[in-house]
Amino acid sequence: MNEFAIINSFFKSQAISTKEVLLGIGDDAACLDIPSGYHLLVSTDTLVSDVHFLASWDAYIIAWKSIMVNVSDIIAMGGEPRWLSLALTIPSYNESWLARFSQGFHEALAQYNICLIGGDTTAGPLSVTITIQGIVPKGRAIQRNGASPGDRIWLSGEIGGAAQAVAFLNSSTPKEEDLSVLMQKLQFPVPRRDLISVLQRYATAAIDISDGLGADLNHICQASNLGANLFLDAIPIHPLVKKYQLKEALSFALAGGDDYELCFTTSANQDGEILNVLKAEPLACFPIGFMEAKPGLRGTSSDGSVRELIPQGYSHF
Amino acid sequence: MNEFAIINSFFKSQAISTKEVLLGIGDDAACLDIPSGYHLLVSTDTLVSDVHFLASWDAYIIAWKSIMVNVSDIIAMGGEPRWLSLALTIPSYNESWLARFSQGFHEALAQYNICLIGGDTTAGPLSVTITIQGIVPKGRAIQRNGASPGDRIWLSGEIGGAAQAVAFLNSSTPKEEDLSVLMQKLQFPVPRRDLISVLQRYATAAIDISDGLGADLNHICQASNLGANLFLDAIPIHPLVKKYQLKEALSFALAGGDDYELCFTTSANQDGEILNVLKAEPLACFPIGFMEAKPGLRGTSSDGSVRELIPQGYSHF
Repeated sequence: MNEFAIINSFFKSQAISTKEVLLGIGDDAACLDIPSGYHLLVSTDTLVSDVHFLASWDAYIIAWKSIMVNVSDIIAMGGEPRWLSLALTIPSYNESWLARFSQGFHEALAQYNICLIGGDTTAGPLSVTITIQGIVPKGRAIQRNGASPGDRIWLSGEIGGAAQAVAFLNSSTPKEEDLSVLMQKLQFPVPRRDLISVLQRYATAAIDISDGLGADLNHICQASNLGANLFLDAIPIHPLVKKYQLKEALSFALAGGDDYELCFTTSANQDGEILNVLKAEPLACFPIGFMEAKPGLRGTSSDGSVRELIPQGYSHF
Repeated sequence: MNEFAIINSFFKSQAISTKEVLLGIGDDAACLDIPSGYHLLVSTDTLVSDVHFLASWDAYIIAWKSIMVNVSDIIAMGGEPRWLSLALTIPSYNESWLARFSQGFHEALAQYNICLIGGDTTAGPLSVTITIQGIVPKGRAIQRNGASPGDRIWLSGEIGGAAQAVAFLNSSTPKEEDLSVLMQKLQFPVPRRDLISVLQRYATAAIDISDGLGADLNHICQASNLGANLFLDAIPIHPLVKKYQLKEALSFALAGGDDYELCFTTSANQDGEILNVLKAEPLACFPIGFMEAKPGLRGTSSDGSVRELIPQGYSHF
């Protein structure tokens, strides 16, 4: 089976198409008709075997997660994911692995109605690189640099669960049902599509939590030339992180990546309106602090004391 | 040095920007304003260490070639390359390697005025995946399926040189000056930007020769539901392929990939006009045969005899 047969059997035959895809898989390039009134968003994420996932994982999960971490980047810009290209490098032809991978791949794409428009299949150490494209109404992309002093900081869900799963992969086994809950967080992140309209209406800055809340909020701070002050007791930490990390739960959750929740800022005078919108849907989202003119990351405890936080995140090198 | 520092030091600081790039490296996604009247072209190519290049190669060359094989795909659609994303996976942080890689990368981008808009830097076995985007006037993308019976087949330059270089990498060394000439063909392909306007005006189908003329012309044949008949003596074969492959030169050149010349078809009644255009510039381009209704690939020798050709190309699996 050569690469063209692999592409046809496992990918081309099942790809969703829309009228914007004038030409999909199978030529030198795909050809797209970008709807007028929109800007194009482009993001790339690579997942490397035994760095971002274990080679022993079900290929369905590897495919699913590869797509979701890319989808999350488009949503964090306030955009709608639309098309993607897959660069898949595999050590050898393995039909059952490819069948599971393509099943996870197409099921994940179907969740968001995303079209696979092309890519490359090569022999080599297992890795998955996806370049995703989305659209956003012109002038409405939400950047990291738009926050102002006083802006409210929001977090879209509990953090730390995926990092706790990673911690368990290299240590003693927790209760089986706890591990299962945590692996779900690590392997099946749920990009917050339900928040796109809230982001487009209210967000002054936004980012997805791939490197940990501390490191990623720090990116907003640096891009906006501001600092942040978090209500430490208001940060939603996964209950199993509290259970296993005890007193270290907060710093563990702040440093732990791979959650793919959203962190965004909004003008403080819109708090009431936003809370009403969130309640009406309802949409999970937590006010966790506010932006300040003073640079750096700080946390305020329930007793009113303030301490510096060190933004730590995963580093490849 | 973490991945953000690598991106800033070696990539972001030197990236070209244009007014269409509303947001480049450094947010969750890049944001582009696609000019009206154009369709978007997207192509992805992965180069894996010790498959597509040797890890021992100067990193400048690895970067240069990675870009050019992607540029070639956009040109083969009649499009103009504009933006690209780089997914770079490297085993460890190596400053001098990264400096050479980024030098080759930015110099290659500058040749075509292409903007680096984002990507991902990860730790793992060395590989380079690039997703390139280009634009083409609406409705003018040149596909593989547009050829008609009787169409002239053109080839933009000599073939087989890159494959001959690969052959020498695993065998006895040829004359030093011959190897140098051939390595130039393998390492520094020159995408044929000078042919874009000819393609846009005349081409009914086009493809770039990455898998070998036989395999790639066969893609046009299959997509167009036609066959091809080549004038075997008219195919421009690199002189060093003739020197080293002797009687096997033709079949070697037909099967050898990595040349990144263009193969395209045009309506036969435009031969005279096209030859005048090519001569006026002047642009290298050779008429090498014609499309036929009968499927398959055939070659006609100077004595008028016709024989079947087997389209062989590189397969990863």
